[in-house]
Parts: sequence; C-alpha cells; structure tokens
Amino acid sequence: MSQKVIIVGAGLTGSLLTIYLARRGFNVEVYERRADMRIVNISAGKSINLALSTRGIHALDQVGLAEEVLKTAVAMKGRMIHSNKGELTFQPYGKNENEYINSISRKDLNVILMNEAEKFPNVQIYFNQRCTGMSLETGEAYFVNETHGGSSVVSGDTVIGTDGSASAIRMEFLRSKHFNFSQSYENYGYKELTIPTAEGGGFRIEKNALHIWPRGSYMMIALPNVEGDFTCTLFMNYENGEYNLNKLVARTDVTQFFQKVMPDALELMPELVDDFFNNPTGSLLTIKCYPWNINGKALLMGDAAHAILPFFGQGMNCGFEDCYYFDKLIEKHGTDWQKIFEEFGKLRKENADAIAELALENFVEMRDLVAHKDFLLKKKADVLLEERYPERFISKYAMVTFHRIPYAIAMKRGQIQDRILMEMCSKIDSIDELNLEEAFDRIKTEFAKAGIEEKLKLEV
Amino acid sequence: MSQKVIIVGAGLTGSLLTIYLARRGFNVEVYERRADMRIVNISAGKSINLALSTRGIHALDQVGLAEEVLKTAVAMKGRMIHSNKGELTFQPYGKNENEYINSISRKDLNVILMNEAEKFPNVQIYFNQRCTGMSLETGEAYFVNETHGGSSVVSGDTVIGTDGSASAIRMEFLRSKHFNFSQSYENYGYKELTIPTAEGGGFRIEKNALHIWPRGSYMMIALPNVEGDFTCTLFMNYENGEYNLNKLVARTDVTQFFQKVMPDALELMPELVDDFFNNPTGSLLTIKCYPWNINGKALLMGDAAHAILPFFGQGMNCGFEDCYYFDKLIEKHGTDWQKIFEEFGKLRKENADAIAELALENFVEMRDLVAHKDFLLKKKADVLLEERYPERFISKYAMVTFHRIPYAIAMKRGQIQDRILMEMCSKIDSIDELNLEEAFDRIKTEFAKAGIEEKLKLEV
Repeated sequence: MSQKVIIVGAGLTGSLLTIYLARRGFNVEVYERRADMRIVNISAGKSINLALSTRGIHALDQVGLAEEVLKTAVAMKGRMIHSNKGELTFQPYGKNENEYINSISRKDLNVILMNEAEKFPNVQIYFNQRCTGMSLETGEAYFVNETHGGSSVVSGDTVIGTDGSASAIRMEFLRSKHFNFSQSYENYGYKELTIPTAEGGGFRIEKNALHIWPRGSYMMIALPNVEGDFTCTLFMNYENGEYNLNKLVARTDVTQFFQKVMPDALELMPELVDDFFNNPTGSLLTIKCYPWNINGKALLMGDAAHAILPFFGQGMNCGFEDCYYFDKLIEKHGTDWQKIFEEFGKLRKENADAIAELALENFVEMRDLVAHKDFLLKKKADVLLEERYPERFISKYAMVTFHRIPYAIAMKRGQIQDRILMEMCSKIDSIDELNLEEAFDRIKTEFAKAGIEEKLKLEV
Repeated sequence: MSQKVIIVGAGLTGSLLTIYLARRGFNVEVYERRADMRIVNISAGKSINLALSTRGIHALDQVGLAEEVLKTAVAMKGRMIHSNKGELTFQPYGKNENEYINSISRKDLNVILMNEAEKFPNVQIYFNQRCTGMSLETGEAYFVNETHGGSSVVSGDTVIGTDGSASAIRMEFLRSKHFNFSQSYENYGYKELTIPTAEGGGFRIEKNALHIWPRGSYMMIALPNVEGDFTCTLFMNYENGEYNLNKLVARTDVTQFFQKVMPDALELMPELVDDFFNNPTGSLLTIKCYPWNINGKALLMGDAAHAILPFFGQGMNCGFEDCYYFDKLIEKHGTDWQKIFEEFGKLRKENADAIAELALENFVEMRDLVAHKDFLLKKKADVLLEERYPERFISKYAMVTFHRIPYAIAMKRGQIQDRILMEMCSKIDSIDELNLEEAFDRIKTEFAKAGIEEKLKLEV
C-alpha cells in the first residue's frame, strides 16, 4: 500500500490518527503550525487540563498506548465541591472504585503520541508549517514555513484536517457550495490559574478529585497534575452578573473577589493575581458543520469538525473515538476515501451533535446544580438504580464517561432519566424515600414513548 | 465633511446605501466584483424576480427614487394558484386595491440605483474589483482587478461590506474572535425558467398576480415582467420526494414531469427543456451572524449580514430598510462609526432573525398551505378581522409586506394570530361560521400572555 495521506495538525487527534494510519501502512505526512513542543516551550497559559476517560482509553488501547499514557495521569474519583465557606462535599463519579476519570496534561499526552508516530518509518512530521489553504479540486495543500517564510505545495492521495477549532482546511470548505456551518461563542471566558505543589512536595488539596467551586453564574475548577500542582480554570461571564470578567480590573478586585466567594482557594494560590493578569482570557466556542468531507479530497476530524465546550471532558475523547471509527472504516473500504469519508460523517455527525449539547448542559450542572440538594439526591438515585437494574440503567454521566454507548443514544436516554429523577428527588428529603420501582417504571414508559429500547446494548 | 467610506459591492443594498451616504456629503468609493451591468450582460440565469413592497418603497422614497422605480414594476395584487388540473384560484394579498406588491427586475432596479449614485460628484464606482479581504486593524481593503489582474490597497474612514451572501468582508470577520456565524443550506435547489411574451405582445397569463403551482414538496412560481414575459422559478428538493432534481436527468424526464403535475404551465413554456438544462441550479441559503461590525472598522449590511430565503419577498426590502435606519443613525451620531455600527446591529439583528424565520415559514405556506381549504378560510378571516378591528389587527402577511412594523414584532403577533385562526378555521366549512369576537378575544388573551401590546403602534 503506497498511498500518501496529508494530515494538517499534529495535535491530539491528528497525532493519534497518524499512528492508526501508519499501522495500516500508509505514508503519512503531518504538517503542524506550531514548533515542536518537545524542543520549544509553547504553552500559552490557557490549556484546560484533560480528563481522559473510557472512549479515549479504548482508542489509545487499540494502538497499545493506554498503559503508557495512564502512567502520567492522576485518577479523579469524583467531584470535590467547595462551598463559599470552604466546606467540602465529595460526589463520586461512578458506582464503584473502577469508575473514575484521568487528569492528564495536554502536552505530556501529545508528546507520547508524536514520539510513537515518529517510530514509524512511513511517518514524517513537519513543524512550523502554517496551512494557508488547499485546493478542493486538485487536493493540493499549501503551507508557509513560520520560521523562514518559504511556502510549499504538498499533494497526496487525500488530506485530513485535524487542525482544530480554527481549522484552515475548514476555511476552504466555507468557500464551497452547500457547506453548512456554525460557530457560536458563549458569553463566558476563562482564565487559567494555578495551585502550586505543596512546600516539600505533594498536593495541597485532595489529589484524586476534580475540584469545583460552583457559584451559580460562574465557577472555578482544579485538576491535579502528577507533579503535585493543580491546573485551575475560572469560568466567568464577560459582562453579566454580580461578578464578571469586565469588573475584575485592578489587582485588589481579584483578591477581594476570591476573598469573598472562594476564600479557601485564595489561600492556596500565592500567584493568583499575577496569573490572572498575565494569562490570556480563553474563549468558549462550539463548532458544527456538515458535510465533513468534500468529494473525498479532504476530511475534517476532531475539533476541526466539531469543537465542543469543555464541560463534559469529552472533546479529546470524542476526537480519539473519531480515529477508532475511522480506522474501522478503512478496514471495511480500503482506500475508497470518498466512501470512507461519507460513511464516517454519517456515523459520527449525530454523535458529535449530541456531545456538543451534553457539554453545554453539563456547564449548568457544574457551575450550579452540583451545589443543590435535589441534584445530590439524584446522584444517589443514579447509583441505586444502577445497582438494582444492571443491564438496564446507567446514569447519563456514566454512559458518556465510562461506556462507549454512542453519544446520541446516551443523550436521549440520559435526558429522560435525569428529568424524571430530578422531579422525583425534588419531592423527597432523603434517598430512602425514593421509590426505585416507580422511578424505573416511569423511565421505561418514557423510553417506550420515545422509541428507545429499554435494555441497554453496551456493545458498539 | 470630508470622510471617505469604502463600500464593497454595488448590488441593490450597496447602491442604495451609496446614495444615502452621498446625500450626507461623504466621499464614497464603491468596489464591485462584476462588470458594469449597464455595459456588459451579466445575467447568470438564476435571478429570482424581486417583489418590492412597503419597506423597500419607503427607503427609496427617502432619496426620491420610488416613483421612477415603480414605473418599471408590474403590480401583483395577489397569488394566482394553479392546481394540477389547471384550475385557477386568486388569493388577494391585501384587504383592498391599494395593498399589492411590485414585480421588478433586479437588473433594472440596480441600474436605476447606480445611475442615481453616479450623479453625485462625491461617488466613484469601480467595477471588476474582486475584494480579496481587508485588515480589521488598519481598515485597509484589498482588491484584485478581474480584467487585468492588478491588485490594489484602498483605505478610507470605514468599510461597509454589502457584498452579499458570499461576502469577502465577512470572511475576515470569521478570522477574528467572538464572531458568531452560521450558514445553513436548504435541501432545495431552484431552476430559473421562462414563460415568454405572447405572440404579438402581451401576457400569456394574468398579468397582475404572482403565480404559484403549489405541489406540497415542491412548487413553481412565476412573476411578471413589464415586457410581457414571466420569470419562473421551480423550487425542488435535490434528492427526496416522488419528484426531485436528481431524478430530472433526461429531456423527457422534464417534459413528463411538467405534463403530469403542471400541464397548464408546460403549454406556456416552449423553451422549458432548454432553460432547465442550460440554467444553473441555484441554492437556498440562510446566513446569520453577529456582531455585524468589528471595532468600527468594518460593517456588514444586507445579505452579507443576514441572507434569507426568498419566500417572503423581503431580502431586498430588508436590505433597503437597513439603509434607511443606518442613515437615521448617522443623523444621530455623525461619524462616530463605532457607535453607529453598534447601535445599528442592536436595532436590526432581532429583526433580521425574525424575517429569516418568517421566510422559512412562508416556504411551507407557498408550496403547500395555499392549496388547502383551511388556509383559504384563514385568509378570509384575516380580511374580516382587519375590517372589524382596524388599529388592532393586521394579518401577518400585511404586517411584513404593507407596513413597517419591526419584523420581530410582526413575527410575534403574526405567529399567534395564525395559530389561533388556523385552528378555528379547521373546524368550519364556511367563513360565515367563524366567530370573529371569539377569535379576537383569544388572540388578545395570547398577546397578554406573551407580553405583546394589544394595540398596534404603526409608527416606527
């Protein structure tokens, strides 16, 4: 097999895809805009830590990388909720010790993937290559070298754009007919902050948790790093609400804000004010488009096709799952790119749309619901129902995070389950009062109405 | 006043805007991609005829052009429905003889506007100038001359993109942060066809009507031209339905299709098959975006900001209304472009969104509802209610077409009115059975619930 595939973007999805394609014997040329992060420090101070979960682990496992990657991760077994008085409440993510998510640094993971990709003699990664566009007629892709300014024209048998939410390949799609596209920004921005390693080493707060300071209209989260520090992210409206980003202008604005609403965090963050003003403000964006390919000449994958909000921790997991399904389609159709691309789009589009919607829902959940009594009861109801009806009930969070049930099905089932359980939990004071049989019956009835099969088919 | 405004695109909105700005003393440079249509024939065989109505006429009247333009128009006093047996039903558009819309050729109107604009010594129109982008920092705009290939850099005090649904200026907006954007294609395409002038001159079918052949999943319309011919447009799904564009492949496919479902039209169209295969297939697109300006350096207006479907005949009328309101804001804020642009966006965005939605609704109405009994009764109910409750009831169609009530208000009121009247009309066989008081009371109640003022304020 001597076909050549051009990959634009050596981020997480692009690098894993390269490995999958290399294993199938394709010649893969990867063009990356940034410098080689293994040589140059290119951190922009705005990377939200990643939560690697079942879908991503499964995709890594197919190429033998899951174990190596998980060694660099910190297990997060639940949410640790910080009240504004500093009280802590722990909400487990899963029904048992085996269900947890993995905090991992974007850079560490990307380096592992690039190193693995470069082990293949049929892979070549070129850095500092900014894509300036491509011809959807000839399939040629155009690059400018960001170091010396030279330009080049590259051609292969097909082009795959894994160049992220600001995809240059997608810009070409926009010039073609019948390309449906939307980009939608939230009114929220975010700031990366840090809880440093404790003096003498170790973690200043619970290591094995995703920490949340939920405050209704805004929130901060903190994810552990293996070195003992936490990467924190403050999500906040630009201009609305009692507190917002536009109001935090002076150094004292920031300290007074933290003092008032997250005093326990303030004590943990000696560099808070400098971080706040030195780091750029990130923006939150959802991208939807279709079709994802033009005539088999080019395909969009990962964030380039479906950038989502970070609140379900599924952006990377979804991109990795893209790679897995794409590989299965190569197994089925060989190098009939047009056929592979068409089928890939049909298979993945509704699932990408579903996880986009779920991620938005989870933003409300994280910044607000997790602090409410009804929601805590509902979480307990989820666990009891999973115990009572294995094979037939899985919580929405677990379907998305600990299973590989297609996102679209997880969303349909999960939204019905959550609506019924939230309503029932709003009427009780203790989980003992919940009638599990009644809850499950109501869920079954709603499933039947919506044409959803009652039994779970976990295999995909 | 010596400020210079760069206008990209000398289409309908761009040309009218130029006149408004020239009257205020600005130096206006207009850059148009196409050749000068007054010299070169640039018809692409895919222009749906325009229906000029109150909003557009009002905006033309402000610059003294309404009378001249209306001389080239043909009054359309209602819809003439053609059944598949060739039976005709006439549905008046308005409640009296003074409420009608005006069929006008895009080219004739554009020529009148360009001629008027060029009467001003402070206006210069450059043709064959394709915009290749602009700098949103410096405000410079870039053009390539399509004739000789030379490129130029142009700068003024601000840039206004009236360059249509495929706007080059908007492409620059897409590269900036926090620009919300969507483009969404219908699964329908369209073909321009012709009913020629009768032998010896005159109209082959009723002159003063917009003709419709409604067929549920597809339709044809025909709009009269002053010369006696009709510009027809067949709207049809690309791939779904008993008949679709993908199925009309051979010459006999087209004639058999017309013979079966629009036999009366077939007889009127001697060039049908040639037109069908020679003319390109047009596509149907909705564009939404926001903000419409970047830092006062550039503004989008007309289709560049809000391209809509053609089914309410409001695309041009809305663009002309943009010009009118923009001019009012110059009156208010002088040359504070940032302020003018911000206020323009806030004023017009919800109205542009509303007419986009109304145009989509009207597609269903035109291709399907107009052939139904309930709908015909509802039309009669509209007229009776307008007579009984002047000042308090106007039909949705009339609010959009014969008044200048903001589109957003017309939509809110109209949707409630139509829902209630359709339901009541579905239960009766003759309009005499309709209880007008009850209908109006129900509408008032729903208005109150939705926070809509009962009395119409027609002044805007």
